[in-house]
Amino acid sequence: MRHSAGGAATLTTVTYPFLKGHGTENDFVLLPDLDGTVHGDLTPERVRALCDRRAGIGGDGVLRVLRVHASGTYDADWFMDYRNSDGSLSEMCGNGIRVFARYLVDEGLVEAGQPIRIATRAGVKVVTVDGDLVIVDLGVAQVYDESPVSVGERTWQARHVDVGNPHAVAFVGDLQEAGPLRVAPTHDESVYPHGVNVEFVVQVEPGHIAMRVHERGSGETRSCGTGAGAAMVATAVRERAPRGTTYTVDVPGGRLWATWTQDDRVLLSGPAVVVARGETAL
Amino acid sequence: MRHSAGGAATLTTVTYPFLKGHGTENDFVLLPDLDGTVHGDLTPERVRALCDRRAGIGGDGVLRVLRVHASGTYDADWFMDYRNSDGSLSEMCGNGIRVFARYLVDEGLVEAGQPIRIATRAGVKVVTVDGDLVIVDLGVAQVYDESPVSVGERTWQARHVDVGNPHAVAFVGDLQEAGPLRVAPTHDESVYPHGVNVEFVVQVEPGHIAMRVHERGSGETRSCGTGAGAAMVATAVRERAPRGTTYTVDVPGGRLWATWTQDDRVLLSGPAVVVARGETAL
Repeated sequence: MRHSAGGAATLTTVTYPFLKGHGTENDFVLLPDLDGTVHGDLTPERVRALCDRRAGIGGDGVLRVLRVHASGTYDADWFMDYRNSDGSLSEMCGNGIRVFARYLVDEGLVEAGQPIRIATRAGVKVVTVDGDLVIVDLGVAQVYDESPVSVGERTWQARHVDVGNPHAVAFVGDLQEAGPLRVAPTHDESVYPHGVNVEFVVQVEPGHIAMRVHERGSGETRSCGTGAGAAMVATAVRERAPRGTTYTVDVPGGRLWATWTQDDRVLLSGPAVVVARGETAL
Repeated sequence: MRHSAGGAATLTTVTYPFLKGHGTENDFVLLPDLDGTVHGDLTPERVRALCDRRAGIGGDGVLRVLRVHASGTYDADWFMDYRNSDGSLSEMCGNGIRVFARYLVDEGLVEAGQPIRIATRAGVKVVTVDGDLVIVDLGVAQVYDESPVSVGERTWQARHVDVGNPHAVAFVGDLQEAGPLRVAPTHDESVYPHGVNVEFVVQVEPGHIAMRVHERGSGETRSCGTGAGAAMVATAVRERAPRGTTYTVDVPGGRLWATWTQDDRVLLSGPAVVVARGETAL
């Protein structure tokens, strides 16, 4: 009963460090690579292997952690090299960058309470770790008109909010109203030529909303940081809330808080934790 | 913007070692606890936290690794304390025990090529690590009559095979014939009073089958070790194959080999790997 099963790697091969963490159950594999020498060759195949939830470690994406040397390229100390679980590059991730900052503080690389400047492919973001919470400044939100989104026979008018990426926010009477969301809601292609993330939002009580989110390319997820910010902005517009009002935003994976500041910026706050660290040869 | 998010643990708390591995994409969190002092209090809550695919490490179950002291209770050197991902106790797992043996060899605790006697709640099993492959003796298979299983409007006659747990093996013309398997196939309650695992099997070529499996309590999975053994037995009965014939069994998560020996035992062989090791405070 001897057969060749082929390429079944064991840890006798070269290993490298990883961590796993999540923000409201949006989860990531972190790859410390401070001087860029470990994963200069981070291939899509390796990213997919790491994110594979059964054959790998599992995650919604990979966060490669790089130190920015004083080159003048960025006004930042760190670079978040974010990859989607399918191996493609991505600009930014509102929950991922909060886990990234938690790692830096856990590791003693930066001090809690101090603003951390993290470069991303969508520019430099400022993140602060404050006890259990990690707060990220997502930048300026742009508010546009409403247009329809549909699931099957149902259609809702949804507010277009751009927080670095496009969102359509629909207010519903009940979070189950949109059904199981196995396929993407349809949208107006002229409004969203590159697709859109769709949030379904209910008011729980004044200053407190709950939402579900369908992310373009990922399907329904447990949490979306920029989606929570967009849902808050659409709610504040609808309720004519004064700037600076902080909303509690419940997502399937936990609770976030979002504030639309006097200067139109979206601050997102919530828990972010590292739950495991180790080594792998994936 | 200061809020209490509550209990977000960081790794500043006490940690313990873990590993993650899989056999044909049936994946497990391993907890080394050789002398039983680390996880004497392994609660269902901790098992669920470890197996959570987003907030935890992620796995189909937990394999707690204990050394058996010469107490005379078992004729074995190791005990596999297996827990399902929902926290409940389980007797045996054909892929889990192969990952368990791979860990012992990787760790240098036993020598490759030697039979390893591992106690489980379903008795002592003998496992051998042979290069990339890990072979487990699943014990004697019992073959019973056929009875119907159904999915929606479709019904198949399925062979009842017991390999420590009950299986119903249906031969189909195409693996997609049973559809998406979102709900359990129905079965004859008088034949399977405690439920049944259902395999849908096609012949690829002589001595080579492919299958899908719906596991009771888990739904459709990437692989089921005892299910691969049961599918092989049902095929050998159907084809009147001589005992000792080794079948290649393709499962969604990879390839296994199964043999029904002269003395009615089922040997299951296939890859099993440890892909990561580290520490956690979950």
